[in-house]
Amino acid sequence: MTDFYPKSNKPAQILDMNAFDRDKSKISGAVQRRLNNVGASSVLFYREPIEMVSAKGAWMTAADGSQYLDFYNNVPCIGHCHPAVIEAVSQQLSKLNTNTRYIVAIVDEYLEKLKATFPASLSNVVLTCSGSEANDLAMRLACKSTGGTGFIVTECAYHGNTAFVTQVSPSSLKNETLPNHVIAIPAPSVQNYGADIEQGFTNRVQAAIDELSQRGIKVAALLLDSIFSSDGVFSHPNGFLHSAVEVIHRAGGVYIADEVQPGFARTGENFWGFSAHGVVPDIVTMGKPMGNGFPMAGMVTNPHLLDAYCHDVGYFNTFGGNPVAAAAGLAVLNTLESERLQDNARILGDNLKTRLINIAEQSSIIGEIRGSGLFFGIDIQAQGTHSAELTIQVIDRLREQKILAGAAGKQGSTLKLRPPLCLTQSEADFFIEGFRKVALA
Amino acid sequence: MTDFYPKSNKPAQILDMNAFDRDKSKISGAVQRRLNNVGASSVLFYREPIEMVSAKGAWMTAADGSQYLDFYNNVPCIGHCHPAVIEAVSQQLSKLNTNTRYIVAIVDEYLEKLKATFPASLSNVVLTCSGSEANDLAMRLACKSTGGTGFIVTECAYHGNTAFVTQVSPSSLKNETLPNHVIAIPAPSVQNYGADIEQGFTNRVQAAIDELSQRGIKVAALLLDSIFSSDGVFSHPNGFLHSAVEVIHRAGGVYIADEVQPGFARTGENFWGFSAHGVVPDIVTMGKPMGNGFPMAGMVTNPHLLDAYCHDVGYFNTFGGNPVAAAAGLAVLNTLESERLQDNARILGDNLKTRLINIAEQSSIIGEIRGSGLFFGIDIQAQGTHSAELTIQVIDRLREQKILAGAAGKQGSTLKLRPPLCLTQSEADFFIEGFRKVALA
Repeated sequence: MTDFYPKSNKPAQILDMNAFDRDKSKISGAVQRRLNNVGASSVLFYREPIEMVSAKGAWMTAADGSQYLDFYNNVPCIGHCHPAVIEAVSQQLSKLNTNTRYIVAIVDEYLEKLKATFPASLSNVVLTCSGSEANDLAMRLACKSTGGTGFIVTECAYHGNTAFVTQVSPSSLKNETLPNHVIAIPAPSVQNYGADIEQGFTNRVQAAIDELSQRGIKVAALLLDSIFSSDGVFSHPNGFLHSAVEVIHRAGGVYIADEVQPGFARTGENFWGFSAHGVVPDIVTMGKPMGNGFPMAGMVTNPHLLDAYCHDVGYFNTFGGNPVAAAAGLAVLNTLESERLQDNARILGDNLKTRLINIAEQSSIIGEIRGSGLFFGIDIQAQGTHSAELTIQVIDRLREQKILAGAAGKQGSTLKLRPPLCLTQSEADFFIEGFRKVALA
Repeated sequence: MTDFYPKSNKPAQILDMNAFDRDKSKISGAVQRRLNNVGASSVLFYREPIEMVSAKGAWMTAADGSQYLDFYNNVPCIGHCHPAVIEAVSQQLSKLNTNTRYIVAIVDEYLEKLKATFPASLSNVVLTCSGSEANDLAMRLACKSTGGTGFIVTECAYHGNTAFVTQVSPSSLKNETLPNHVIAIPAPSVQNYGADIEQGFTNRVQAAIDELSQRGIKVAALLLDSIFSSDGVFSHPNGFLHSAVEVIHRAGGVYIADEVQPGFARTGENFWGFSAHGVVPDIVTMGKPMGNGFPMAGMVTNPHLLDAYCHDVGYFNTFGGNPVAAAAGLAVLNTLESERLQDNARILGDNLKTRLINIAEQSSIIGEIRGSGLFFGIDIQAQGTHSAELTIQVIDRLREQKILAGAAGKQGSTLKLRPPLCLTQSEADFFIEGFRKVALA
């Protein structure tokens, strides 16, 4: 059972992200200090990492005084250092911070406001500290309620960092392979499935169910990031997940929507990514933007799924659902509303997408533009083929233009862009100007 | 592999903690609201749960105006709503909150101050959001570096809430059993091992290694809460773990010290619980009091253990080690120093223990008094035998005396007491007065 990475079913390719590499990069004093403290667990962006000192709105300021437009981090969804979160956290920290073994009114106020964003069937919430903890619990609920142990994910999925969740996160595996009970299927792209993505993807889900069955394993869940972030961002056509969800239900499995990246209004048209597909998940997990950086995450589900698990195993999370997290979460939900940030994500996102497509038509290195709202995947290509190396160069050149970006996708050749939802028109213009220079250089 | 609770090796008895039970308790409007929101995952203290509205220092204030002396929660170690943490968190939230993919100086400042509290061999830190995440990672390091998969824990151990960690947390299992690769051994008490606890406990560790071996499983780790909190608090004699650690090393396993409960100066004589035993762990995990309630936790280890894991699997924690957590953690370390709270824990703890023993000698329901510093385990007995029901009554009567307490131990018959380390002499007197009334009623 603890043999959690049997040597089989190795993912086709491991992502080589935009990371500092101590064997390839020059090591500054600040980087050496970090390496001394955290050793091999260090994961720094850029071949020459950036020391940051402050941030505000969509901008981050480095130690050398440079200001960068943050087009990468989806955590500060309402903007870095938003006063609403600072005030809410400071006030609640001054009043009461304790665990959910006591009743605290603000916690239930938050839970009710959060639940109101979901379909009515998803009426029980468990708050945790991280999306990893949320997915770890969701997977156990799936196993317990279905009697199955098999999971179907996409081939570059990332769902978190616990032992159990790492098993279903092919993108985390460097010299390891997927265990026998996990099947990773190709991302829902035209390249992989042709024009009828829905039919192709659904067929592949059914084939995975059958393959698990041949291995003697009953499927527990289809676990999908609703916008396939680490696979390279696959958002369209709306509704393509519909029949795959029917298929997993027919097989007795549940559908878990991982909203850690697309959730909380980022996709513009919808508050949650799964809504674009006209489906109701059995379990939804959420995290990163939930507290705008305050460590909090959660899971919502049907009561009967939660009952089945809690009947046999106690679950308690010391920090999960504390009143300070509730205050931060409330501030985020209230600000998304009061600043109309979902509308902003939709309107500015559509505008940016049109301009990006225009640039792509003139550029030899920009391929397909995908995404929804303020979540973009942009393929980078050298002589018409995917290029991870060129993608890293593009990220470095965007950095020279004072724009922060990241990479994703099976070939590591997709730019992943997720600016704060408070992005302004002039900041969007700044990005387009910098991006145009890099794309048309 | 996902069959994470095979039906074997069921723990002798499951804890019946001091919890609200919807089948036995009357349900108020506030409790019903909570149940509607979190369903079966609800874990509330007391048969009639308390609604809290504020807290300061060692005191919590309920919605009905009652003030309770918090003798239970080890999270607010420097006191509820301590101004140093509020100020540090508010300031850093206003300045910068991002992840460890960028260099931020305060993060390394904190890491260095934290490392200085450990033996020099433990030079790499991984910061996480929860003690559960820290233990989940520690267990993987143990497996990877030893090639083993077996774990030895104590029979009422609690090490966290992830799938992997729940496997080694017998106290979480209600209608489940321990998996084959986990052996739970009796806690290090005189009742279990006689006067020579060190020899008895060491023999039992060796027997567990042998039993795993007979099952075809190589041992990965001996994973122990340094003060055996949920087993009922077993602190003495100092040094009794010494030869058990030698035995696990001889078998090729590692020793993981779980300091989530005893760590950060609570035991008075030492900053870390393992120090009382004169041993150096291979991995130390920590959590709850680390940020005085800000969600943060971590793991320290030898670089070679971390290298082995990170060579094969990527590990990144979005919220772990963010600069706001670092600011909170620094405020805690600085306040422990400036307010001399380790000294306070030792001096006030010794004083309280003497007075508790004095009360026990006059009481028919108070048995053994155990613990170190401001961490106490007090056995409750009816007619000389352990009584969970009487323990719950004692906890309810202490509540009437405005004192918050909890239960632990195999029979659920040990009071677990962990007041904030900022406890004053007059607060200690208040506790003794209330406790005396309950003990001698």
